[in-house]
Amino acid sequence: MGGDIPPPVDQLAAVSLTSDEASSSTAQKARFSDRVRINSILGRPDGGAGLAGQKVRISGWVKTGREQGKGAFAFLEVNDGSCPANLQVMVDASVSDLSKLIATGTCVTVDGCLKIPPEGKGTKQKIELSVVEVVDVGTVDPGKYPIPKTKLTLERLREFLHLRARTNSISAIARIRHALAMATHTFFDEEGFLYVQTPIITTSDCEGAGEMFQVTTLISTTEKLERELIENPPPTEADVEAARVVVKERGEAVAALKAAKASKEAIIASVAELNDAKVHLARTEERSRLKPGLPKVDGKIDYSQDFFGRQAFLTVSGQLQVETYACGLSDVYTFGPTFRAENSHTSRHLAEFWMVEPELAFADLEDDMNCAEAYVKYMCKWLLEKRYDDMELMAKNFDKGCIDRLKLVASTPFGRLTYTEAIKVLEEAVAKGKKFDNDVEWGIDLASEHERYLTEVVFQKPLIVYNYPKGIKAFYMRLNDDGKTVAAMDVLVPKVGELIGGSQREERIDVIMERLEEMGLPVEPYEWYLDLRRYGTAKHSGFGLGFERMVLFATGMDNIRDVIPFPRYPGRADL
Amino acid sequence: MGGDIPPPVDQLAAVSLTSDEASSSTAQKARFSDRVRINSILGRPDGGAGLAGQKVRISGWVKTGREQGKGAFAFLEVNDGSCPANLQVMVDASVSDLSKLIATGTCVTVDGCLKIPPEGKGTKQKIELSVVEVVDVGTVDPGKYPIPKTKLTLERLREFLHLRARTNSISAIARIRHALAMATHTFFDEEGFLYVQTPIITTSDCEGAGEMFQVTTLISTTEKLERELIENPPPTEADVEAARVVVKERGEAVAALKAAKASKEAIIASVAELNDAKVHLARTEERSRLKPGLPKVDGKIDYSQDFFGRQAFLTVSGQLQVETYACGLSDVYTFGPTFRAENSHTSRHLAEFWMVEPELAFADLEDDMNCAEAYVKYMCKWLLEKRYDDMELMAKNFDKGCIDRLKLVASTPFGRLTYTEAIKVLEEAVAKGKKFDNDVEWGIDLASEHERYLTEVVFQKPLIVYNYPKGIKAFYMRLNDDGKTVAAMDVLVPKVGELIGGSQREERIDVIMERLEEMGLPVEPYEWYLDLRRYGTAKHSGFGLGFERMVLFATGMDNIRDVIPFPRYPGRADL
Repeated sequence: MGGDIPPPVDQLAAVSLTSDEASSSTAQKARFSDRVRINSILGRPDGGAGLAGQKVRISGWVKTGREQGKGAFAFLEVNDGSCPANLQVMVDASVSDLSKLIATGTCVTVDGCLKIPPEGKGTKQKIELSVVEVVDVGTVDPGKYPIPKTKLTLERLREFLHLRARTNSISAIARIRHALAMATHTFFDEEGFLYVQTPIITTSDCEGAGEMFQVTTLISTTEKLERELIENPPPTEADVEAARVVVKERGEAVAALKAAKASKEAIIASVAELNDAKVHLARTEERSRLKPGLPKVDGKIDYSQDFFGRQAFLTVSGQLQVETYACGLSDVYTFGPTFRAENSHTSRHLAEFWMVEPELAFADLEDDMNCAEAYVKYMCKWLLEKRYDDMELMAKNFDKGCIDRLKLVASTPFGRLTYTEAIKVLEEAVAKGKKFDNDVEWGIDLASEHERYLTEVVFQKPLIVYNYPKGIKAFYMRLNDDGKTVAAMDVLVPKVGELIGGSQREERIDVIMERLEEMGLPVEPYEWYLDLRRYGTAKHSGFGLGFERMVLFATGMDNIRDVIPFPRYPGRADL
Repeated sequence: MGGDIPPPVDQLAAVSLTSDEASSSTAQKARFSDRVRINSILGRPDGGAGLAGQKVRISGWVKTGREQGKGAFAFLEVNDGSCPANLQVMVDASVSDLSKLIATGTCVTVDGCLKIPPEGKGTKQKIELSVVEVVDVGTVDPGKYPIPKTKLTLERLREFLHLRARTNSISAIARIRHALAMATHTFFDEEGFLYVQTPIITTSDCEGAGEMFQVTTLISTTEKLERELIENPPPTEADVEAARVVVKERGEAVAALKAAKASKEAIIASVAELNDAKVHLARTEERSRLKPGLPKVDGKIDYSQDFFGRQAFLTVSGQLQVETYACGLSDVYTFGPTFRAENSHTSRHLAEFWMVEPELAFADLEDDMNCAEAYVKYMCKWLLEKRYDDMELMAKNFDKGCIDRLKLVASTPFGRLTYTEAIKVLEEAVAKGKKFDNDVEWGIDLASEHERYLTEVVFQKPLIVYNYPKGIKAFYMRLNDDGKTVAAMDVLVPKVGELIGGSQREERIDVIMERLEEMGLPVEPYEWYLDLRRYGTAKHSGFGLGFERMVLFATGMDNIRDVIPFPRYPGRADL
């Protein structure tokens, strides 16, 4: 295998991960562009003031532009997405046609000189750019631009998924989302977990619950066939019969020639004609069986003709599959898209969303809770350290409590109580007059109102509720010694309620088989999952975090459709 | 919005990302388990020798086990997936029933004392574990275990996707794959790129090329309806007619009562009966229209009844969508699954694979090439720094040149030549007698044999070929001033050929409209993409790297099905 072409290893240079970055006393050019990122100017501790006098090229989109001094010059607020702040750009009318620059949404690349703005203009800017040359302009017709300066509602912005990343709110969310993803990978990498890409297309159904999307090529194949059958109609029964008659006649002709002891050549020619007729008959019969509609066998759709030779779906969770890697590589996690074909029109549900699912071998429920708590805290700290600017924007525009909430979660030990204790707390609240839409009694699945009441009102901090009744939980969760609860846990946080759900997995083959039977689930589809328990079984635990839930929690946004770049829900899958 | 529950911010502790890790002079426990990872012992510069005398708990799976000293003790080679090396574990028969421990695949958790092994046994081990207590065992019946000690072929291992992560080769590939993913996120984060999750389910067709998987709920809805129609057959025309007769009769009855000036009560009762009959008729008519099969309108499938109200597919690339984020946030990238429903049975194609697609605003083709080269070099350096142990395993077992290849790519400036120059080089080779399966002439798409010849034989280093004929490239690539080439580039590397394909994007609205027309593509589906050029258009560039190609390149493996955890290809989607 490989290695057949020896590379010239003799002149190899030293290998290092460090890149040669400019020192911070000069404006730092983006490495793969000739521009300087606005964040490299405004994001400095001195707000950019230390760069005064330097010549730089910047690029970005005009947020607002206004001519001043009777058209003698223009001020542009330019944003390039590298930070929430805009750079103030001053263009003299002698440098460029100002009317082409000032429309909101205009894209500009300009060379200029950084200057400390004159005092007393009431500006908060520590630095502005005085333009020497306008290098490039992407104009905008303000009469046609769908997202003008006047603020559109978030709902209206959803009509323009392809342009909304240019708005303050959606771009701040994008940077926060990136930070949370990067915090996720960094946390798990530092803790020794391996990132495993579980399959998107699956033939397993995690939990046997939840509506799944089907993945197929059968419909397109069927449509192709139907078009072909219209252009070239299939043979009728009469056509088939006619082909049969020809075979019969030619068969008789061969027999007659043989009986007449005809020449070898004549017989061979006659047999060849018979064979042609047989081939024609076979083809005619085959085509006569072609029918419009999906292929069927015994009245059911014939999935052996589908791409994967069986029915396939979009995954609802990578957990079961990632367990196969945990049971060999110990600590692993998935971070990928998952899907639910539920006809849900709420502000909390998407048909396509991202999940983070760690799986820890040699870990019990307490280890699992420790990991979940450490992970959530890590993300909150990361955001406070890396994206405080965007968090301030969110606090100002959407949810004034969001920064305090991050600080609270980052610094406060999570409360932990059993499901049974949680029910008691809720029952006491009801006894004191608290009204819930959903009744409280041992055995219920906690409703969102219960979860938020516990975390927001009673404890006023993140909570982990654990040891749930087995009746409301999945077959793979480990049965506790009491025989009626399982080692499951949910992390509840203020603002969104349930953020994480997890469990210790049932590693005992006899117990899990019993649970499958108890729940009326078939064994066959889970044979591979049971093999993990049959051969070298290991104690293990894991959890799932809905990534968009975490973005909602962090940003304080209310609608999940605004915290994923391209939301998918019933009736909508734009772009 | 939000913020209604003020958290108790007064007692917030200091917030920092640093975790409290044990010093390296003691064996470091995994943070979310009571075990020590084997890598924390054997991965030290001293091979673990400095930990001699310490008591530790380790867990893992037995690679090989053998009883010695006539059953007085046993040696186990234990691996927990944290590194390719096994820890040698010695168990005395007085401690445990040795027969339960020695089968390959057995899972053990043991407490013991780390000891320097006696010299002269010919062992390379710097440290071994002498077991004090066997804490937990997951047994294996060696007669039934599908992946016994005897080495299975990679092809055979693909039959056991759920167990193959326990093998040396697949676990090494998993660690290398993780390292490459982590290098990817770290590189782009450091360079100021934002990770954007482009949609998996899409209603756009990138390039109009490539077979796509359809995502639908229509089939399951249809099957449900068909089952219902069998249980409860639809009304016949006679049923409908009967219902009509009832309506008519009751209508006449009402009329008769009115004509007879009957009591108000009698008329009201009669009208109520009439209304019931009308409702029944409407329901009967509606149900009589129900037909088995997919819903159709004008002979075509009625996708307005599908989940998203239109036909939806699995994405073949996130490029077009991620461009919407580049044109607002400047530098972005996607890293996610992509899909091709091609009936391809080669060792280089998968139906589901992962792509990394950066998109750079204010960057031209040269910036794009610089970024691609820096990114590939970064990954190679990262692997050499972080997973040299696994690279040694790959070099030993699969491809002795793989480490030198990484070093070559990490340290050598990539060659760059135009497509036209590349064709000249190939034509010269042909003139000198080199034979290719595919003819060489200006205008052809380079075949894999051409690409590998250029990078492996002629230049013996990574190459970037750029400025391809427009006829073989996509509509969105920027037209060069020569009018016949586009600003496209491919990165070619030894072993796999094309690793990256990219281009500067056509940002001029008039030129891109012309290209669409020239290529006979419809404009309507691309309106949103054209909007990016209509409003504040920006020069931008990007590329795509097939992640599994990169893993093949790094590991030297030959079959792409072995470098993704759960390969999907025609006829197979296990788990």
